[in-house]
Amino acid sequence: MPDDEPNPMANFNPTSCVVVIGNEVLSGRTQDANIRFLAAKLGAIGLPVREVRVIPDIAETIVATINEVRAKFDEVFTTGGIGPTHDDITSECIAAAFGVPWEPHPEAWSRMAAAYKPGEFNAARQRMGTMPRGAELINNHISIAPGFSIGNVHVMAGVPAIMRAMFDTLAPTLKGGKPILSRAVYSHGLAEGLIAEGLTAVQQRFPQLDLGSYPFYRPTGNGVAIVAKGTSEADAEAAVAEVTQLIAKLGKIPIQGEPAE
Amino acid sequence: MPDDEPNPMANFNPTSCVVVIGNEVLSGRTQDANIRFLAAKLGAIGLPVREVRVIPDIAETIVATINEVRAKFDEVFTTGGIGPTHDDITSECIAAAFGVPWEPHPEAWSRMAAAYKPGEFNAARQRMGTMPRGAELINNHISIAPGFSIGNVHVMAGVPAIMRAMFDTLAPTLKGGKPILSRAVYSHGLAEGLIAEGLTAVQQRFPQLDLGSYPFYRPTGNGVAIVAKGTSEADAEAAVAEVTQLIAKLGKIPIQGEPAE
Repeated sequence: MPDDEPNPMANFNPTSCVVVIGNEVLSGRTQDANIRFLAAKLGAIGLPVREVRVIPDIAETIVATINEVRAKFDEVFTTGGIGPTHDDITSECIAAAFGVPWEPHPEAWSRMAAAYKPGEFNAARQRMGTMPRGAELINNHISIAPGFSIGNVHVMAGVPAIMRAMFDTLAPTLKGGKPILSRAVYSHGLAEGLIAEGLTAVQQRFPQLDLGSYPFYRPTGNGVAIVAKGTSEADAEAAVAEVTQLIAKLGKIPIQGEPAE
Repeated sequence: MPDDEPNPMANFNPTSCVVVIGNEVLSGRTQDANIRFLAAKLGAIGLPVREVRVIPDIAETIVATINEVRAKFDEVFTTGGIGPTHDDITSECIAAAFGVPWEPHPEAWSRMAAAYKPGEFNAARQRMGTMPRGAELINNHISIAPGFSIGNVHVMAGVPAIMRAMFDTLAPTLKGGKPILSRAVYSHGLAEGLIAEGLTAVQQRFPQLDLGSYPFYRPTGNGVAIVAKGTSEADAEAAVAEVTQLIAKLGKIPIQGEPAE
């Protein structure tokens, strides 16, 4: 049993949702590289991701999804669809979702106009300087075109390096909650079916934690990792200590931490 | 312009949705490795993925999501949450979503009972032989526990190797449509903002295709890949031929296919 009381704030962190916009992920062409990055970063600032949606470049789907998730979650992060080509329709769809005009953003527009060679700030590129009225820019140090926030929706690029640069700009402005911490223990040769009963009991004693059981299959051996996540380090460590004992009782060797990937 | 008429069946393929169930993806602990595999395989058999959801191991979320997407899409594929531990609740949630009892599946149960050593088919493992009434098994050659299908929902493991083995068993039983084909051309040093206008015109001439523009950033150089997807090989090739000319007109070297990853 943990020494401290269950943390009543544990379930009161604000929540977030990631919306990946792009046919290229839905077609299998592209391996998404943004979900995991955002999930880890948002958990660390106490804005845990509660749902991810991957949706196509179809206007009605984007508008309906954004309006659903911005009402349901505290913060929404989109990736993809803000470039200059015909399939980049995220920005105007966000405007439609918020019911505001889609119009040149004075700062983005003038910055882009200055950055391109004369004649090269063409109609396609001008679309990247066009945003929902009231949008606040999300700058980045890689591309000329910024992302933007409007209300609780944060609109970022799909290219991972640009998305990450935008998120790094955005993160300090976000109001997070308690950071989600993680403690883990694993063992080679452990079977989930043998530790399951004991794990259930540990989870019941630590309802404020999320206790996950994850089999792994590595060239160096198979096994199971048990991960405790929550906002209390003491709780996570106490739960993992109990799981460590469970593993030892099953005659296996517990190793603290996560197995190498 | 393509020689053949626009294919009126192009938009009439059945549709599919992938639901990834698991806190480990939402927390950033685990890089999803199932979405891309399923998206590519389902596109190839004419069941293109139109949406992906990643949701937590929370019963009400699973039940609500399954009921929403099984009504909205022709086929639904879930991954994750069918192991023996306390956080594996997909199976009973699917039963709840369909409003049927969750009970021992005679075939799965007897097969598992025979596979484990005496005394090791314990309560936790028995949960893996417990399924929604009416479930049809999805076998695999890796693990003892099967997945299952009920109605248009196909429930598979989250561990990629097991999921793939299950999908390979399942695939021949699925009623797909026309395979989604892909043709691509790329060029180093190409800027999306310069080809965008021409691409829009090509997309308008081939409304039956999905024409995507994807910047790439590789150690060997940056550039843009243009990908035409659809059910007509002739259309895709004709569109890519037009894009190839566009690239050449911009003074860049078009290369057929996708850039190496």
